[in-house]
Amino acid sequence: MRYLPGEPQQLPGNRTSLAGYQASHFLFEVSDGVATLTLDRPERKNPLTFESYAELRDLFRALAYADDVKAVVLTGAGENFCSGGDVHDIIGPLTRLDMPGMLAFTRMTGDLVKAMRHCPQPIIAAVDGVCAGAGAILALASDIRLGTARSKTAFLFTRVGLAGADMGACALLPRVIGQGRAAELLYTGRSMSGAEAERWGFFNSVQEPEALLAAARGFAQGLADGPTFAHGMTKKMLQQEWNMGVDQAIEAEAQAQAICMATNDFHRAYHAFVAKQKPQFEGD
Amino acid sequence: MRYLPGEPQQLPGNRTSLAGYQASHFLFEVSDGVATLTLDRPERKNPLTFESYAELRDLFRALAYADDVKAVVLTGAGENFCSGGDVHDIIGPLTRLDMPGMLAFTRMTGDLVKAMRHCPQPIIAAVDGVCAGAGAILALASDIRLGTARSKTAFLFTRVGLAGADMGACALLPRVIGQGRAAELLYTGRSMSGAEAERWGFFNSVQEPEALLAAARGFAQGLADGPTFAHGMTKKMLQQEWNMGVDQAIEAEAQAQAICMATNDFHRAYHAFVAKQKPQFEGD
Amino acid sequence: MRYLPGEPQQLPGNRTSLAGYQASHFLFEVSDGVATLTLDRPERKNPLTFESYAELRDLFRALAYADDVKAVVLTGAGENFCSGGDVHDIIGPLTRLDMPGMLAFTRMTGDLVKAMRHCPQPIIAAVDGVCAGAGAILALASDIRLGTARSKTAFLFTRVGLAGADMGACALLPRVIGQGRAAELLYTGRSMSGAEAERWGFFNSVQEPEALLAAARGFAQGLADGPTFAHGMTKKMLQQEWNMGVDQAIEAEAQAQAICMATNDFHRAYHAFVAKQKPQFEGD
Repeated sequence: MRYLPGEPQQLPGNRTSLAGYQASHFLFEVSDGVATLTLDRPERKNPLTFESYAELRDLFRALAYADDVKAVVLTGAGENFCSGGDVHDIIGPLTRLDMPGMLAFTRMTGDLVKAMRHCPQPIIAAVDGVCAGAGAILALASDIRLGTARSKTAFLFTRVGLAGADMGACALLPRVIGQGRAAELLYTGRSMSGAEAERWGFFNSVQEPEALLAAARGFAQGLADGPTFAHGMTKKMLQQEWNMGVDQAIEAEAQAQAICMATNDFHRAYHAFVAKQKPQFEGD
Repeated sequence: MRYLPGEPQQLPGNRTSLAGYQASHFLFEVSDGVATLTLDRPERKNPLTFESYAELRDLFRALAYADDVKAVVLTGAGENFCSGGDVHDIIGPLTRLDMPGMLAFTRMTGDLVKAMRHCPQPIIAAVDGVCAGAGAILALASDIRLGTARSKTAFLFTRVGLAGADMGACALLPRVIGQGRAAELLYTGRSMSGAEAERWGFFNSVQEPEALLAAARGFAQGLADGPTFAHGMTKKMLQQEWNMGVDQAIEAEAQAQAICMATNDFHRAYHAFVAKQKPQFEGD
Repeated sequence: MRYLPGEPQQLPGNRTSLAGYQASHFLFEVSDGVATLTLDRPERKNPLTFESYAELRDLFRALAYADDVKAVVLTGAGENFCSGGDVHDIIGPLTRLDMPGMLAFTRMTGDLVKAMRHCPQPIIAAVDGVCAGAGAILALASDIRLGTARSKTAFLFTRVGLAGADMGACALLPRVIGQGRAAELLYTGRSMSGAEAERWGFFNSVQEPEALLAAARGFAQGLADGPTFAHGMTKKMLQQEWNMGVDQAIEAEAQAQAICMATNDFHRAYHAFVAKQKPQFEGD
């Protein structure tokens, strides 16, 4: 796992600082605990390449150990979110790979989604304009999605002769918008409008385009200022309980919440309440 | 398992009567097979205490054997549903417990949800006003939720520094309102309005406040007058199939429905239909 | 597995032709790769019988091997979809069966749902008028549902004294419309209106009655003209990942999509894109 030009900085206690990380294939900046990751090839609507996939995967894996990033905003430059895998840079080469090569690619893209679901930071996608293919998956793999009315989200794998089963879409999308609506989008590859996305629960809210990024950052800042250890546990348990039985999930939460009751943030909240003050959370 | 001042009455055949049960920490009355359970500390918006948690758990466990309760209405006194765990009575003491003590508490609250999901009676929550924290979980753990426009439902564990993973919320809430909306409510602790709750499928309907309890009782009475053995099987299978594969669920239902075809209620319905009469179900 | 008067025609390579299949208990015709299956006892609102259940099960099983059917439209004659199991032909005899007989029946009806979920062809239900009992399940077991405003969909098993747990309803319905709304429909047996069905995600869209069948056929034709091998993989993975963990689902999709990348349709799509042409998919 290499980072050029920036590398995460190792800190004592198995922690890593990522505030100074300089990304090679997208923009990455950290402010007040909120990272903003911007896909930045606006002239092509921010497509993904083999290199950006790999760097995204490595970065989200590194975030699992980063002490100084508490929430992530994921967005695209120039009024589009992401157009997915570049046809010339990715689809073309894929048609010339052998089976191990194709599987290595689909596993790499899948590993990006796994890394997004396993890092403790909530990920807030800010979706304007085109959000297509693997770009739609990046939005889907986020925890919270803010969008615009004019955005178009399309799981368009079928348009290039592929299955809707890409990077976990057949598992994730039905749980967000329901099995019937997910089936339609995955079979047809048609665009979901911003209004549909909000109505179906894909977008948490629809924003004016000029207010979108600020809204996403505000949302992320609110989480970063909160009990971030507990937020990480919320994210972990949403993942853990995905296919548990109800009774097993309840026991799992009994353990998870008991851990959170041992944190300082829980005590801070109680004492602030008693003192009629607003609690100051520190994530420990 | 002790009941003071009332205790469930043992009947032959492993059945129990709960119609005469006098609750200590809430109101409980049974009429025509419908139990109405009212959280009743309206001056504090009906918070839960260690004692009321335990009595609720024991009562829902006893309902599994009660012959004379066919449906349960769960509500709160004084225009609020439930404000959750009392900060002074519960949060304070929790901050002074050791790990086994904290886990004993989270398991007790989880056991209440398990008991609500395992009793055969459908539970109809009637939600007005404040529905917060563990109160929101009580609504979530019910089978049917009727609400009001002015109600505010908040999974606000994060506000006291805890995870949204409490009493099964990360398992249950996503299946009711979708993964994306659930994530927002669990990460932020923000209130869901009555309109949102209806639109997202949390409330089955929104009622005028003065009509809410009657609507909930009417709904419960309709179920209590129906084939209650079959209703209990519906509830059981919704639970059993939570994380089964589709094929396994279909076989499980083949067995469950074959059992129901052996009931007298099924025969009553057929003969009533042939006689062009309304069937009289008796739950056997 | 016998077909009278028509039988599927065996072709080399374990393939079967069903274009010439003449159904005994419903209408079945194939045109341009789209099969239209019409329940056709309009004077009784198209009820199911022991014989039609069995023939439907066998036909959907045969579709798994059929080369010349790429999508299925499922509909009913005479402005109704299907009234479910006939009371006189099915409910009456069921009341006289012993337990092995009842289980054989519930397994047969469940096997129909399994066959619908396991055939690779997407199934488009066109739902007008009455859609009740097992008829509602046939719609639910389809991949896509188009409906009308005047349609009434009712899981009314409870009305004949049975559980809502029938043919997989407790597994399938919550994933389509949410756990709370599904519970209400399964406990009460009440009708879901066309507007509710669209709003809740049961219907993918609502059509005018006179436009419904053409809309369903158009939808099916669009899929039949697409990469049908990939569509079959999408359907298979929606089923496979039903109760997998997220990580397992992502690996499963990495394998499934790598298989699809080895198809000619994927290459056709790429070369058509490069040539700025519309791809012609052939399903191989």
